[in-house]
Amino acid sequence: MNSELMSMVLHNVKKVTPLVHCITNYVTVNDVANIVLACGGSPIMADDIHEAADISRLCTATCINIGTLNERTIASMVVAGYAAHEAGHITLLDPVGAGASAYRTDTAIMLMKKIPFSVIRGNMSEIKALASAYGVTVNSRADTAEKDIGVKTQGVDVNASDKVTDVTVKQSVALAQKLAEKTHAVIAVSGAIDIIADDSHAYICRNGCAEMSRITGTGCMLSALTTVFCAANKNTILHTDAVLSAAVVSFAVMGLCGERAQKKSAEAQEGTGSFRSYLIDEMSTMTAEKLIEGQKIEEFRP
Amino acid sequence: MNSELMSMVLHNVKKVTPLVHCITNYVTVNDVANIVLACGGSPIMADDIHEAADISRLCTATCINIGTLNERTIASMVVAGYAAHEAGHITLLDPVGAGASAYRTDTAIMLMKKIPFSVIRGNMSEIKALASAYGVTVNSRADTAEKDIGVKTQGVDVNASDKVTDVTVKQSVALAQKLAEKTHAVIAVSGAIDIIADDSHAYICRNGCAEMSRITGTGCMLSALTTVFCAANKNTILHTDAVLSAAVVSFAVMGLCGERAQKKSAEAQEGTGSFRSYLIDEMSTMTAEKLIEGQKIEEFRP
Amino acid sequence: MNSELMSMVLHNVKKVTPLVHCITNYVTVNDVANIVLACGGSPIMADDIHEAADISRLCTATCINIGTLNERTIASMVVAGYAAHEAGHITLLDPVGAGASAYRTDTAIMLMKKIPFSVIRGNMSEIKALASAYGVTVNSRADTAEKDIGVKTQGVDVNASDKVTDVTVKQSVALAQKLAEKTHAVIAVSGAIDIIADDSHAYICRNGCAEMSRITGTGCMLSALTTVFCAANKNTILHTDAVLSAAVVSFAVMGLCGERAQKKSAEAQEGTGSFRSYLIDEMSTMTAEKLIEGQKIEEFRP
Repeated sequence: MNSELMSMVLHNVKKVTPLVHCITNYVTVNDVANIVLACGGSPIMADDIHEAADISRLCTATCINIGTLNERTIASMVVAGYAAHEAGHITLLDPVGAGASAYRTDTAIMLMKKIPFSVIRGNMSEIKALASAYGVTVNSRADTAEKDIGVKTQGVDVNASDKVTDVTVKQSVALAQKLAEKTHAVIAVSGAIDIIADDSHAYICRNGCAEMSRITGTGCMLSALTTVFCAANKNTILHTDAVLSAAVVSFAVMGLCGERAQKKSAEAQEGTGSFRSYLIDEMSTMTAEKLIEGQKIEEFRP
Repeated sequence: MNSELMSMVLHNVKKVTPLVHCITNYVTVNDVANIVLACGGSPIMADDIHEAADISRLCTATCINIGTLNERTIASMVVAGYAAHEAGHITLLDPVGAGASAYRTDTAIMLMKKIPFSVIRGNMSEIKALASAYGVTVNSRADTAEKDIGVKTQGVDVNASDKVTDVTVKQSVALAQKLAEKTHAVIAVSGAIDIIADDSHAYICRNGCAEMSRITGTGCMLSALTTVFCAANKNTILHTDAVLSAAVVSFAVMGLCGERAQKKSAEAQEGTGSFRSYLIDEMSTMTAEKLIEGQKIEEFRP
Repeated sequence: MNSELMSMVLHNVKKVTPLVHCITNYVTVNDVANIVLACGGSPIMADDIHEAADISRLCTATCINIGTLNERTIASMVVAGYAAHEAGHITLLDPVGAGASAYRTDTAIMLMKKIPFSVIRGNMSEIKALASAYGVTVNSRADTAEKDIGVKTQGVDVNASDKVTDVTVKQSVALAQKLAEKTHAVIAVSGAIDIIADDSHAYICRNGCAEMSRITGTGCMLSALTTVFCAANKNTILHTDAVLSAAVVSFAVMGLCGERAQKKSAEAQEGTGSFRSYLIDEMSTMTAEKLIEGQKIEEFRP
């Protein structure tokens, strides 16, 4: 991706200040609100059915995260997501824990059937659970001996056997692109190697660090960030892949903030509490220069 | 306001340790609990109807924030607020997002009709939405050309066109005082220029900094802080305007903590994550000396 | 407790990475998730009845915290706790605010009748409220003149008159052990002097600092930490008192992290915001060496 495009994506976020409706889990909702503000967006959370659609219409994008779903909020997700779609807004689904319980998998699939999401962002275990429901399967497990770890053992984190590695990246991109084809969404998979793909193009991004999985909410924050970036750039960059490009840049920015925060906390011999504050610090002070220097985005060509 | 009164207001908070019931949104509830503890109060959150009134009676004040309202919690707000009122406690309403959806505006008005709040604290867009429902209107918009931004565009933040400036402050105070007259509440409006008024007196406060709107929760925290300050001083200061004075001081303290935190994070070239921690740091180490030196309170005389 | 055992308890947490289901309050849920990750566990929160039991079965332990209980989540607590019990998992109850409202006390007792908890962790006011419902009473109040403070005045914090001191520790241990006898649970009482006891053995721990009660969530975090430590060690340490020992070590670790964080924030003349980040820092960098050097665990012999 060329530097000019990356700069423009970042610039548009600060220029537009997208108002983003987040129906998200109560575990990391505060982190989500703070990352949206830090990157230059403005968050609003409204999970009651009496206002969910109104608030979606008021915003320019809606981010739906099923991390602590329940019957009441699922109904609101449907109307909020659909109202956003009808208004031509960016809609993003974060299927937190899909695969960990039937309720989560079924709810994610139901939402996908009712709302044509612009972007679906999850870890590889979650994306595989969705893909499987769409009849999309690719064996990307590096080590079949690990198979008995099972699909359901890791809760909201990725299964060890599902992690994308240099060995499995080709198969993983193929899976993402097949799911993109079925859903017409950008499929964005976070991990040590991120995959961001639509049905015709794919990118991988190697930004990020292990520390990011030692605090809660980095996945949820990334989903909100991607929503903001896509909303700000949807109609503004002269590029056929506006949503895909904006999603790719959001992944690089999040990973880069993690790397920089990790460097700072390690140098000061601090731990994950300080790391978490520094992650937000980095987001609120990100610049095009830092991004261009630190990004590890590659277009994936099979 | 004289220094002795300011010192006394602050002193009483630490002396009394008011137990405050907060029915508040789940986005910033953790920040609210921490600011209450940092200033010297003790928070308890109980939003179920089976205990909401009991918990209000146990406390000395109740703070109601509609940031993530739903049918279940609205019912609890009514009984909690009314029980607090009946017991002669301080009651505060934070009408988060009033004006952003009909559901929020209507709920805020319904609560005001059922509960004679001691204090109503919001940003100018929220206060205008309430005032409008009470038939109170004053054109305080600085620039009518900005009118097409519309009342509903900024979600939970103040509309650009509603911001209180030196040009609009007189009209804004008049609006607050008219609403105070109708509701018998202290009307407390936060912004670059804060307005705190009852029907006969008004103060403005210029403490605070832009960084405070770059993290989530500063408004919600301020509402809880004001509740604590009013509760601790209601029956203790020899002053006819005890609630008004305590509210004014709480605004100055919050703004001053923001200024000091901003100074520290800027000097260390940090961002909004560290700023947020420092804000709580400043609250937990606030003293009468710092307050008297740093406060920017003015009595407003038209 | 010997050093080898303490090291092993800590080592097992990092080795096992227990997946822990937390149905907990929305005030401190983010802190709870972060402390679980910081100590080496993995948290998942699922409070809807359609998946609460499934998620419990997927995990190795379930932590139930009634801090912001409501009818919907209470039903989920019952099925989640019972499913965990049936699966032979560690189950922990944190009866937040028991004694502050009848609804909380009654709910805690109902849960205890339905689920044979492995551990019950609270402050002394909460534990007394439960003990009283089980017909267990010991007058451990240091100063009967303080009695009129009443059982209900402190909300979610311990009553001044219930605090465990060197004068009342013997009576307090006796109360805990009687309740342990009735419930077959380890009773773990946090305070300036912690008490952790089953029906035959008791420990006290003097780690911790006053700053820990100036931020929200240290009690909730401790409950989650104890759940993780007990889950990781239940079947791995060659000791008849595996759960008791693991609970004791979790208390020492939490208190020690508090002491170290307090030292750091005091030296830097910071407040409770920085203290909170440092507490997580310390948890994420805890080692057996630090624990053995800093622990203040004593076996209690009457």
